Amino acid sequence: MTYCVGLLLDRGMILLSDTRTNAGLDNIATYRKMYTFEDPGERVVVILAAGSLSVTQTTIAELNEAIESPEATPESSIMQAPTMLKVAAIIGDTLSKVRLSVDDKLAVMRQGASASLIVAGQRKGGTMRLFLVYPEGNFIEATDDTPFLQIGEHKYGKPILDRIVRPETSIEDGLKAVLLSMDSTLRSNLSVGMPLDLAVILADECRVSSRRRIEAGDPDFVQMSLAWSQALRDSFAKIEV
Amino acid sequence: MTYCVGLLLDRGMILLSDTRTNAGLDNIATYRKMYTFEDPGERVVVILAAGSLSVTQTTIAELNEAIESPEATPESSIMQAPTMLKVAAIIGDTLSKVRLSVDDKLAVMRQGASASLIVAGQRKGGTMRLFLVYPEGNFIEATDDTPFLQIGEHKYGKPILDRIVRPETSIEDGLKAVLLSMDSTLRSNLSVGMPLDLAVILADECRVSSRRRIEAGDPDFVQMSLAWSQALRDSFAKIEV
Repeated sequence: MTYCVGLLLDRGMILLSDTRTNAGLDNIATYRKMYTFEDPGERVVVILAAGSLSVTQTTIAELNEAIESPEATPESSIMQAPTMLKVAAIIGDTLSKVRLSVDDKLAVMRQGASASLIVAGQRKGGTMRLFLVYPEGNFIEATDDTPFLQIGEHKYGKPILDRIVRPETSIEDGLKAVLLSMDSTLRSNLSVGMPLDLAVILADECRVSSRRRIEAGDPDFVQMSLAWSQALRDSFAKIEV
Repeated sequence: MTYCVGLLLDRGMILLSDTRTNAGLDNIATYRKMYTFEDPGERVVVILAAGSLSVTQTTIAELNEAIESPEATPESSIMQAPTMLKVAAIIGDTLSKVRLSVDDKLAVMRQGASASLIVAGQRKGGTMRLFLVYPEGNFIEATDDTPFLQIGEHKYGKPILDRIVRPETSIEDGLKAVLLSMDSTLRSNLSVGMPLDLAVILADECRVSSRRRIEAGDPDFVQMSLAWSQALRDSFAKIEV
């Protein structure tokens, strides 16, 4: 499984994904689940992927082919599409097509394949937008009321986001919130694993403003995780039933 | 949906369940999901139920019939069974039979029915035991390594249990842990709802030592929930990334 989360804050978007992929319990590997498409200052699109690796990798490959094709048009290339809504639509159509094709192949084994994506992007002159694209290709969008989207093993890490994340949350607090949300997920579910990929898109920069891979044992992450555990235990001790 | 949790602590067992039941989004009702079987001082069995109400109610009804039958035997009645393992087996067999029968009826509508149970019990001279009974009738048991079991919407409330609950945890801390675990679930998932049913079985008392229904707006619960939110926000503010 996977856990990916995206925040849409007034000051920017924050994206975090894990990297654990497994095909059965004895075949565990590390794959990047964050894909970046960038024309710095003009347009940025970051995709986070959860689900069948064969579906997500092929979807990304097809999006790349469409971008690089000599016949690329605003209808086919997410780097030329006139709006982020159109970008989400192209990604949704591509995902849906790939998923159906892989699903057909797997039907003979009575298995299926599925995947969901988080799409964050901004083009020059437009606003930042954050989408969740479903396996069928349709999508929803983050709003002021719900300024975060999650895919994969999303339940363990939702309570902290529900309590903390608002559109006016600072980038620093947003980073803390997604990392603590991931920390809760890592602790409770073995199928989500380090390292992590973290990206920040500051408002109106139209590029990946910062990017970081957090390896297992990363001293800052370990420190934060321990401090949070301790803080939770201290808080727990103070609460009266 | 539902959220039920049971703790097996050195000093006793703690059981908590919500009461929300829905048949579609426009038919929401309150049903007790905690069932008590008690011969105080001799034997106590508490069952928490998650899943299709028609399956769980019929299962409980059949268990009751078997207890009250003039032909009740240690093979058929959970109030006569020689061990808690046998109690779990009787409950598992009953659940499995009822589930199959309801499932058969629903097959014509291309639907299915399922349910899981948590079973906590002790008989005089035996040890406290806590089981999770699967829809198929098989079951697992809580141990020192994993002293809690959950059914229903279990993911939101798992991180706090993972961090806090150990066999040596006090009853007071156990109560806090299950209520905070429920609080996180209530906040993040609308299909779990107040009121709550809470029961404590102190070690070797072989009876329900205390029992409480916590209504929506219960001042202690609201106070605890607010204090926990505040403590989490304070902790969050103190953590450095």
